[in-house]
Amino acid sequence: MFEAVELGHAVSKADYNAEVPKLREQLLDIQFELGDKKPFPVILIISGVDGAGKGETVNTLNFWMDPRNIHAHAMADPSDEELERPAMWRYWRKLPPRGSIGVFFGSWYSHPMRMHIDGGKSIDYLDSYLDDFLRFERMLADEGALILKFWLHLSKDDLKKRLSQLDKDKATTWRVGKKEWDRYDRYDDLRPVAEHVLRRTSTGHAPWIVVESADEKYRNLTVAKTLLKAVKARLETGAKPIAASVPVQALDHGDGINLLNTLDYSKSLDKKIYKEQLEHYQGRLNKLCRSKKFRNHSIVAVFEGNDAAGKGGSIRRVIGAMDSRMYNIIPIAAPTDEEKAQPYLWRFWRHLPGRGKAVIFDRSWYGRVLVERVEGYCSQADWMRAYSEINDFEEEMARHGIIVVKFWLSITDEEQLARFKEREATGYKRFKLTDEDWRNRDKWDAYSSAVCDMVERTSTEIAPWTVVEANSKYYARIKVLKTLCKRLEAEL
Amino acid sequence: MFEAVELGHAVSKADYNAEVPKLREQLLDIQFELGDKKPFPVILIISGVDGAGKGETVNTLNFWMDPRNIHAHAMADPSDEELERPAMWRYWRKLPPRGSIGVFFGSWYSHPMRMHIDGGKSIDYLDSYLDDFLRFERMLADEGALILKFWLHLSKDDLKKRLSQLDKDKATTWRVGKKEWDRYDRYDDLRPVAEHVLRRTSTGHAPWIVVESADEKYRNLTVAKTLLKAVKARLETGAKPIAASVPVQALDHGDGINLLNTLDYSKSLDKKIYKEQLEHYQGRLNKLCRSKKFRNHSIVAVFEGNDAAGKGGSIRRVIGAMDSRMYNIIPIAAPTDEEKAQPYLWRFWRHLPGRGKAVIFDRSWYGRVLVERVEGYCSQADWMRAYSEINDFEEEMARHGIIVVKFWLSITDEEQLARFKEREATGYKRFKLTDEDWRNRDKWDAYSSAVCDMVERTSTEIAPWTVVEANSKYYARIKVLKTLCKRLEAEL
Repeated sequence: MFEAVELGHAVSKADYNAEVPKLREQLLDIQFELGDKKPFPVILIISGVDGAGKGETVNTLNFWMDPRNIHAHAMADPSDEELERPAMWRYWRKLPPRGSIGVFFGSWYSHPMRMHIDGGKSIDYLDSYLDDFLRFERMLADEGALILKFWLHLSKDDLKKRLSQLDKDKATTWRVGKKEWDRYDRYDDLRPVAEHVLRRTSTGHAPWIVVESADEKYRNLTVAKTLLKAVKARLETGAKPIAASVPVQALDHGDGINLLNTLDYSKSLDKKIYKEQLEHYQGRLNKLCRSKKFRNHSIVAVFEGNDAAGKGGSIRRVIGAMDSRMYNIIPIAAPTDEEKAQPYLWRFWRHLPGRGKAVIFDRSWYGRVLVERVEGYCSQADWMRAYSEINDFEEEMARHGIIVVKFWLSITDEEQLARFKEREATGYKRFKLTDEDWRNRDKWDAYSSAVCDMVERTSTEIAPWTVVEANSKYYARIKVLKTLCKRLEAEL
Repeated sequence: MFEAVELGHAVSKADYNAEVPKLREQLLDIQFELGDKKPFPVILIISGVDGAGKGETVNTLNFWMDPRNIHAHAMADPSDEELERPAMWRYWRKLPPRGSIGVFFGSWYSHPMRMHIDGGKSIDYLDSYLDDFLRFERMLADEGALILKFWLHLSKDDLKKRLSQLDKDKATTWRVGKKEWDRYDRYDDLRPVAEHVLRRTSTGHAPWIVVESADEKYRNLTVAKTLLKAVKARLETGAKPIAASVPVQALDHGDGINLLNTLDYSKSLDKKIYKEQLEHYQGRLNKLCRSKKFRNHSIVAVFEGNDAAGKGGSIRRVIGAMDSRMYNIIPIAAPTDEEKAQPYLWRFWRHLPGRGKAVIFDRSWYGRVLVERVEGYCSQADWMRAYSEINDFEEEMARHGIIVVKFWLSITDEEQLARFKEREATGYKRFKLTDEDWRNRDKWDAYSSAVCDMVERTSTEIAPWTVVEANSKYYARIKVLKTLCKRLEAEL
C-alpha cells in the first residue's frame, strides 16, 4: 500500500506559487458556503508518520482558509473528567457542529495503535477498536458528516532525511529529540500496523487518503485539493453516502401477539406492603450507592413509558434513596440549537456521569425509534440504523463500568384514559396534560409496534430492558426499585 | 447574629403534615410557571454548619418539587480542567439557565472560608474573595437571576446532639467520623468567621437567610416557604432588583477631541520592511509560545475594530507564529439559545483556554458596550454596568495567569469606504461585505463615542487596550505582533 505512493512526488516552487492563489480562492468560497448554509460538518483526521508534517499541514490550511471555523484538536493525555467517562466521550465533546471543520490530530486511532506497537497489546485488541471506529464513522457519515482521513506518509529514508534536516536547522532543532529518533528506530514496526489499520478502516464514507509527504509543497497541495474537491462535491450534490445496508421492514410476528399485550396488567400491591417494600428497597439502594465498589462505577437509568405511566413518580422513589449530590435528572424535550447541529446522540453523550454518580434520563435516545419514528420526524433509514447505533452507545458505556438500566413503564389504553381524566380534574397535576398527550392516544397502535420493536432490538445482556406493568403505581415503583437493586448487586 | 435565631423553633408532626401538601402544590405551581416561561434562573446556595442537614434539605426540596429542573452541585475538589482556569470557571459552567433551579452546596464561599479557618490565611485574604463574590452576585442579579443564600445554623449544643444522634443510629452512623467531630471541636472558630461573611455579603439582591436547623421539620418548611415566596414575588412583579448605582452619563470631554481623531493614520510600513519585521516578530512570538514559562500561562487575545479594519488579516499573522494545536479562534456572532439563557459573559467564559493555550476572540464581550449599546439591543443600565463587569472578568483571568491582550483596529471613514468598494469588486472578498456593514457606516459617530468610552473605562494595567492605527495593513499587523511579543516578554 505505501509503496504505491513512494513515487517521489514533488512540486516546483514556480508551480506551487502559480497554483496556490486560485486554490485559496476556491477554498474560501466553499468555506463561506459551508459556514453560511451549515449543511454538514467536516471531520478531518490528520495522522501519519511522526515528522511527516501533520502540524505544518494544518497550519497551512489555516493560513489559506478562514481559520475561524476550523478547530484543531491535538488530544494529548485525557483529563480526569475525560478518564471518568467512556473513551469516545472526549471526541464527542469536540465534534464540529454543522458548518464547521474539526481537525483531529491522530484522532481515535492513535491510542490503540500505540498500545499495540509500544504497549504489547495484541492485534485482536487493536482490531476490536477498529471495529468500533468503523461503526462510529458509519454513524457520523449517516448523520451527515463529511469525513476525510489523511495519512501523511514518509519512507524510512525520507524520514531520516527529514529528521536530520530539522535537527540541523537552528530554528527547528528543538523538534527532534530522543523520542523522535526512537520512533524512527521503530519505523519498521509501525509500517505494517499502519497498513493493517488503513486497509481495515478505509471506507467509501470515511476514506483514508495516503499522501506522500517528503515534499511539503506536494503534501500541502494534495491535502488542500482533496479537501476542496470533497466539500465541493457534497455542496453541489447535497448527497450523503447511502447507508450500507438498511433493513426496510420492521419486525412483524404476524400472529398479533406482542410483548405488551401479553403482560399481566392486574399485578398490584397493597398499600401497606408497598410502604414496607419501599422502605426496604430504598434502604438497600441507598447502601449500594454509598458502597466503596460503586465509586468506580456510575449509573445511567433510562425511563421510558406511555404518557401518564408514572415515570415521574417512579423517578422520585429512586432518587428518594439517593443524595441529591450524586444524581442528575435530565428531562428530554426539544433539542437546543447547539444540539441540533450535532449527531442525534450528542445531546446524551454530553450528560454522561462521572464516577460514583448517576444520571437519570426522563425519556432518552429512544425517542429516535419511538416518537421520531411514529411522527415521521426522521426518515425510516434514520430510525432503522438507530437500533444498532444505540446498542453501540450502550456497549461503550457498559464497557466503561457504567451500569445501564432501562425501564419501559407500560399501562393499558383504558388506564391511560382514566389517568388523563384524573389529571384534568386535579389542580397541581393539570400541567402534566397537554393537547399532544391526547393526540398521541390516537396513535396507540403505532406506538405499541414501535415499543415492541425497540425492546426486541435493543434489549441486550449488558443493557437489558425491564418492562414494568404499571397499571398499579405501587407495583411499578417497587419493581423499578427492586430491579435497580438487583442490577447493582450483580454488577458491583 | 446567630443568637437571634437560636430560639428553639420547632414544628409539630401534626402541623407539618397539615402544611406540607398545600406547600407542595404551590411549589409545583411556581415551578411549572418558571419552567414554562423561563423568565429567570434561580440560584440557591445551601451553606452552614456541617451536620445541620444541607443534604437532607435539598433532598426534601427535590422530593416536594419536580426534581427535573433542579440541579444540585456539590463542587468537591476541582478537576484538572477546572484547575487550569480561573477559580470561578467551575461555577460559571454550572450556572442554571433561565427557567431552572441550580443548587450550590457551600458554593464559592466554602474555599476561602476553609482557607481562613483551617489554612491559616488572613482575614484580608478572605475579604478580598468576599469582595469578588459581592460583585459576582451583583452581576448575576443584574442579569436577572434570583439568588437566595441559606445558612443552616446549629448552636454548638445542638450540633453535639445531632452528631451523637446520627452516630447512635445504625443507619446513619457512617455519616459521623473523625472529620465531623474535628469540625465540632472547631465550632468556635467557625462561628465568628461565618458571622463576618454573612454580614459582609448579605445584600438586597442576594440575601443570606439564616435558618435554625435543630428541628428538621422547621428547617425544611422555612427553606421551602422562603423559596416559594421569593419566586412567587418575582413571577408576579417581574421586577428584578435595581442596580445599586448606575451612572447615567457617558463620558463627555466637551472639546471634540477624542482618542480616535487624534491618532496618526498616516503611519505606514514599506513592503520590504514589513516582510522582514513580520518574520522577525513571528519568530519571536513562536519562541515565546514554546518557552517553558508559557506552560503555566495562557493567552486571551481580543480583536475589535471598525468593519474592514483588518482584524482577520492581523489574526492570520498572529496564528502564523503559532502551532494550530495551541490556539482556538472564536468568532463572535449571534448567541445560541443555550447562550441566551445565561448571563451575557457566559458565552465567553466557556471558551477560556487551558494552560499553555491561546484563545483569540474575533469580536468579544465588548460587543455589549459597542454594538449592543449603539443599536439599543440592551438597556443603558445594562451596558453601563458592563464596564465594571468586564474589568472584573479580565481581572479574574489576569490573576490566574492568563495574559489578556486587547486590540482596537482603527481606520478612518474614508479608508473604510475605499475598502468596502474594493471588497465589492474582488471575488473572494465579496462575502466579507454585508448590508449591515453599509448600515453601520451611518452610525459612525455613535460607534466612535462608544469606542472612546470603552477604551477609557476598560483599559487597565492588567489588561490594557492597544489602539492600532490600521489605515496601513502592514503597519497594523506589525504593531499587533510587536505588542503581543512585548506583553509576553514582560509577563513571562
